[in-house]
Amino acid sequence: METNRIRRVIDAMGRIGIRQTLISAPASLFYLTGKWIYPGERMVAMYLNDQGDIRLYANRLFALNGTVDIPLVEYDDTEDCVQILAADLAAGKIGIDKDWPSRFTIRLLDAREDLKPVIGSPCIDQTRLYKDEKELELMRVSSLKNDETILKTIAQLKLGLTEGQVGDIYLKESAALGSSGPSFEPLICFGPNCAEPHHVTDQTVLKAGDSVILDVGLTWQSYCSDMTRTVFMGKATDEQKRVYDLVRAANAAGRAAVHPGVPMKDIDHAARKVIEDAGYGKYFIHRTGHGIGLEVHEFPDVSASSEAIAKPGMCFSVEPGIYLPGKFGVRVEDLVAVTEDGCETLNKAPRDLVEIPV
Amino acid sequence: METNRIRRVIDAMGRIGIRQTLISAPASLFYLTGKWIYPGERMVAMYLNDQGDIRLYANRLFALNGTVDIPLVEYDDTEDCVQILAADLAAGKIGIDKDWPSRFTIRLLDAREDLKPVIGSPCIDQTRLYKDEKELELMRVSSLKNDETILKTIAQLKLGLTEGQVGDIYLKESAALGSSGPSFEPLICFGPNCAEPHHVTDQTVLKAGDSVILDVGLTWQSYCSDMTRTVFMGKATDEQKRVYDLVRAANAAGRAAVHPGVPMKDIDHAARKVIEDAGYGKYFIHRTGHGIGLEVHEFPDVSASSEAIAKPGMCFSVEPGIYLPGKFGVRVEDLVAVTEDGCETLNKAPRDLVEIPV
Repeated sequence: METNRIRRVIDAMGRIGIRQTLISAPASLFYLTGKWIYPGERMVAMYLNDQGDIRLYANRLFALNGTVDIPLVEYDDTEDCVQILAADLAAGKIGIDKDWPSRFTIRLLDAREDLKPVIGSPCIDQTRLYKDEKELELMRVSSLKNDETILKTIAQLKLGLTEGQVGDIYLKESAALGSSGPSFEPLICFGPNCAEPHHVTDQTVLKAGDSVILDVGLTWQSYCSDMTRTVFMGKATDEQKRVYDLVRAANAAGRAAVHPGVPMKDIDHAARKVIEDAGYGKYFIHRTGHGIGLEVHEFPDVSASSEAIAKPGMCFSVEPGIYLPGKFGVRVEDLVAVTEDGCETLNKAPRDLVEIPV
Repeated sequence: METNRIRRVIDAMGRIGIRQTLISAPASLFYLTGKWIYPGERMVAMYLNDQGDIRLYANRLFALNGTVDIPLVEYDDTEDCVQILAADLAAGKIGIDKDWPSRFTIRLLDAREDLKPVIGSPCIDQTRLYKDEKELELMRVSSLKNDETILKTIAQLKLGLTEGQVGDIYLKESAALGSSGPSFEPLICFGPNCAEPHHVTDQTVLKAGDSVILDVGLTWQSYCSDMTRTVFMGKATDEQKRVYDLVRAANAAGRAAVHPGVPMKDIDHAARKVIEDAGYGKYFIHRTGHGIGLEVHEFPDVSASSEAIAKPGMCFSVEPGIYLPGKFGVRVEDLVAVTEDGCETLNKAPRDLVEIPV
């Protein structure tokens, strides 16, 4: 049981004015219990109140008995799990996970008309936002393994490979390093495909003159990495070099802007300004980054409208890009962790221009 | 707009006593509009009431304008989509999709205290249960393509391949036939792994004497197939032959029991009895089958406790198996569609004992 984390969740409950909450997101349950539980169609919920009462309601089929040090209330498929849970709740406001399927919430409200449901996820999301030392160490290792894997993948690039085959090379190398899997499907783009940030890795074949975007991540002891490098097949053109240098400078400016107390929108602005000042602003068509941890997309949002303030322990991506339709695209992405006096960049792989001989 | 299907959903609403409902499951929206919409974090909901009023609430980013012939209410990221929806609802009971994230349901109830939420999914699930002629034709093609793909995969089996490689052969062959993708990850098991119905395809290497279970499916114009064949590497032992013949007979008995008016539990019993009578009952450790259509698991459940009654248009699997721990396992699975006077077996691939020369 992660006692410190639970205490921080209880503090956060007070801040949103609830005295009891249900937690059901798998990543949040892992965060508090150390166990991944995938309930499928069945119900799982952790109850927590401001007195520190805590219980985990779980189907006997999940086989949790003896594997978690939190009081368990087990049920089986012949029992009505929602009624069992409903009977144990205090009247009044109850926090509910934002993603809990409505079938549970509706039946809970049917069983207990004296409950007032409130979206309870902020208590836990705002706690997970700040990584503790144990988490930071795993985030570092995850990104170092990702660095190593992307470099091994880039070393195997050659004309004639498809985007899908390059993705498979990444997956094979990350598995060989001991990763438990990718944190998202490798996004590999060649040439004009690089100009579409929503391109899906396909059977496009690698040609001389192509830019190659590798946007990849793995999981290491449940913690996610996520990085992007862009390389060129053969000598980069003057335009490719100019765009690459700009994106690399924007990435550096974004990371340099990360200090405790700085709003996310200012970090977005720092990266965006480099690109805008060079006249490429309209080709940087997405936010600068996103939080990351047990899930590949977490709070905060690093965008022009994000008022969230950087504080020590937050981890997020800085990933500016320039996308020239029909031609090529460049993105350079690193993860950072906010420190007491700035930030630590978790990725160590070089960002120099890479021209692969063809 | 699928007018007949919408009329049937409205009829089903009457049967569960609601006059308005929200539909949000992607497969159900496809069923009614012909469009797959994956909302991610954003909200999508179709409103339908018993007067036939119908509207689709969707984010402008989904780019549905001009692609669906249902009245659209579009919103963008700066607007509060739940408030927009809430303002249009009648007071009283409202059906809510069983899987709709609670964040939408809770905010809807905050906005409208005069609403009474009810799980609305049965209206649409009980309609999707009965495939119309257009759907049956797609189900037939999907299973024929699956037959063809599994036979091509079996023809490529050879000692030394891993389970993962055999799965990849299936995926490649199904893509070559024009499938838009698998309906689930291929489940390939060798030897003792066949005795674990929850085995996950891994790097186990194919050896002489192994049983090989191939449990595979693809999608064809959005409709799912799902079948299992079991073959042997080299001459099957007497025990392997005995078990194979029993499972094949149980599969045939299950399919022979399918007639309009027969409860699912009787179909389960017909298949199970063949295996029980031969003394292998305790090695048939799962239900006999499951419904299938736009999703690989739909209603009905073909199990010992399922009171659902077979009616024309229902499609489901018949998949008995025998699993001998530490030794081998056999499963033979076909899809059937209930007809006016029995059933049509959608899979045509042979069920004869196959011994692959080694």
